[in-house]
Amino acid sequence: MIQYPSKLIEEAIGEIAKLPGIGKKTALRLALHLLKSEESSSIDLAKAIINLRTLTKYCQVCHNISDEDTCGICLSHRRDKSILCVVEDTRDVLAIENTSQFFGVYHVLGGVISPIEGVGPSDLKIDTLIKRLQTGEIKEVIMALSPTMEGDTTSFYLTKKIKELSEVRITSIARGIPIGGELEYADEVTLGRSIVSRTLYDQN
Amino acid sequence: MIQYPSKLIEEAIGEIAKLPGIGKKTALRLALHLLKSEESSSIDLAKAIINLRTLTKYCQVCHNISDEDTCGICLSHRRDKSILCVVEDTRDVLAIENTSQFFGVYHVLGGVISPIEGVGPSDLKIDTLIKRLQTGEIKEVIMALSPTMEGDTTSFYLTKKIKELSEVRITSIARGIPIGGELEYADEVTLGRSIVSRTLYDQN
Repeated sequence: MIQYPSKLIEEAIGEIAKLPGIGKKTALRLALHLLKSEESSSIDLAKAIINLRTLTKYCQVCHNISDEDTCGICLSHRRDKSILCVVEDTRDVLAIENTSQFFGVYHVLGGVISPIEGVGPSDLKIDTLIKRLQTGEIKEVIMALSPTMEGDTTSFYLTKKIKELSEVRITSIARGIPIGGELEYADEVTLGRSIVSRTLYDQN
Repeated sequence: MIQYPSKLIEEAIGEIAKLPGIGKKTALRLALHLLKSEESSSIDLAKAIINLRTLTKYCQVCHNISDEDTCGICLSHRRDKSILCVVEDTRDVLAIENTSQFFGVYHVLGGVISPIEGVGPSDLKIDTLIKRLQTGEIKEVIMALSPTMEGDTTSFYLTKKIKELSEVRITSIARGIPIGGELEYADEVTLGRSIVSRTLYDQN
């Protein structure tokens, strides 16, 4: 147990080390960096964090992070509203948008089913997904969840649920992405191609 | 160039990615983590950062981070004030304190001489080091800077400066093969130096 020379730095390290992937040693390094930098940079960082958490809105249609009540993708007339891509979170939307290979719309679940982390279907934006499908406007649902145990479970759960209610075509991004890899770390070419050569969900 | 779905998240990512060792992808991951967590945890983090930067004091004697004007080590009657250990920053004080092998006092330079990063002798706490030596209370100065180009340059500069002014004994922390380290994996310079500056077997 290291004894820090001041309560202020101990508290700052404690808070910074709560972030995922950041341990006490990295937190100490970051805290010392802030102490050496201009006071304004610490204040800007703190303000940006508070603004992010307190002012961020979510699109009421697709649940992606947005500046407005409805996001730019959902509002755009150039996007094909008949193709819906189901993703875990904003990172995946960013990754897919970055490929310039997808012109449909998204549905951001806000997570995947994970019994270990206590995330069940009711914690995800599944109700609104079903409602969007019930309008009949959507002709195809692309499952673009990470090919992990949790992602596969969620895809399976959703597919079963959708098929009970709707005749919509359900596809999955092609398994060009290495199994066990996180979607956001896939290179653009692989990720783009996996969207173009998506396959029927049952054929996997 | 990734286009983020909201200005708030773009600003937060920009600020977080200014921290050393954190890129845009990690910053996005941390920002999404904050968005998913309780609002209070973002506010606590922001407060801790502002408090750290605006309220942290430095010991007026050794320049280590402190809650008071003079730090606990400098005030302690159990510490040997005649032995002074010169270190780069607070991390090094913590590392040495953690060994429970040093009972003297410290002097925190606040950096090392680095022409590439524009850090010269005047940017370091060298004046106060000289003043401490001029009191005559200190009998030994231990140079405990990192064995890098910058650390060695700083040790060399300080040693020259101290010798001009004082008869104090100047030592350096031992350089050699780390305890538990395999001999064959040691670099040539370290291994060579460990042979040249070998010690009597009993003294280890």
